[in-house]
Amino acid sequence: MSKKTHIAQTDPFRWEGIPLLAYKEDGGTHFRDVTRQVLFDDSEHHDTQLRYFEIAAGGHSTLERHQHAHSVMVLRGRGHALVGGAIHELAPHDLVRVPPMTWHQFRATGGEPLGFLCLVRRERDKPQRPTAGDLAALRADPAVGAFIRH
Amino acid sequence: MSKKTHIAQTDPFRWEGIPLLAYKEDGGTHFRDVTRQVLFDDSEHHDTQLRYFEIAAGGHSTLERHQHAHSVMVLRGRGHALVGGAIHELAPHDLVRVPPMTWHQFRATGGEPLGFLCLVRRERDKPQRPTAGDLAALRADPAVGAFIRH
Repeated sequence: MSKKTHIAQTDPFRWEGIPLLAYKEDGGTHFRDVTRQVLFDDSEHHDTQLRYFEIAAGGHSTLERHQHAHSVMVLRGRGHALVGGAIHELAPHDLVRVPPMTWHQFRATGGEPLGFLCLVRRERDKPQRPTAGDLAALRADPAVGAFIRH
Repeated sequence: MSKKTHIAQTDPFRWEGIPLLAYKEDGGTHFRDVTRQVLFDDSEHHDTQLRYFEIAAGGHSTLERHQHAHSVMVLRGRGHALVGGAIHELAPHDLVRVPPMTWHQFRATGGEPLGFLCLVRRERDKPQRPTAGDLAALRADPAVGAFIRH
């Protein structure tokens, strides 16, 4: 990625020389209309990466959990996030913490794109997807059952 | 700091339960009108902190350098940043990298507050301020000399 000192935002939520990537490197089908841009990834200075994800209106991220934590700041749009058993309504600049091994999913429910920064450890474990048993447990709460996309 | 899962932005660029702090813990006088809010500081999960700084219209951060790097994203307002020998005009969502041991200073030159995220290693060295010799070297470039506040 670019090592320039100043990287201008060219179009809204697009940056000079920073490629627009697929959400997941390995493809997969358990998400809809999500892009990824890696803003800071400098192993000399941090053990973290800062990425910008954008979910198109109506889209959603993967329902997953993992040992590593996410630290999120919403930058644009409205939406909802499931974190554990709770569904949070999101607005610009809201912060979201996803603790280890906590089921989570972001949805662009506001009829507009939902864009957010996500700070994550560079060395991290692979996300786990829910088993049939996990899904049944999640669906024991009707609100969660109605929210999740799988 | 708060360990809540969802931290709403309450007023613009202010967050529920996150205190508005002085720019520098040890006081000091080589800056003007700068506040600090620590958004993410979770030693269990990251070795980095994410802070939000806001420089009031006309204010400036300290002219300094250090071994640790800064990764910055502008969130509000306009301004300029000196990084090494270059002065960059800043707009919302622009990214700035400050490499190790590089003189830098941010100024809210746009008649409005300049607010930015700054990602930094938690364990870091203390900033150095310029000596008379460093200032003379910086001022060898008239544009830099006119820009810096000391």
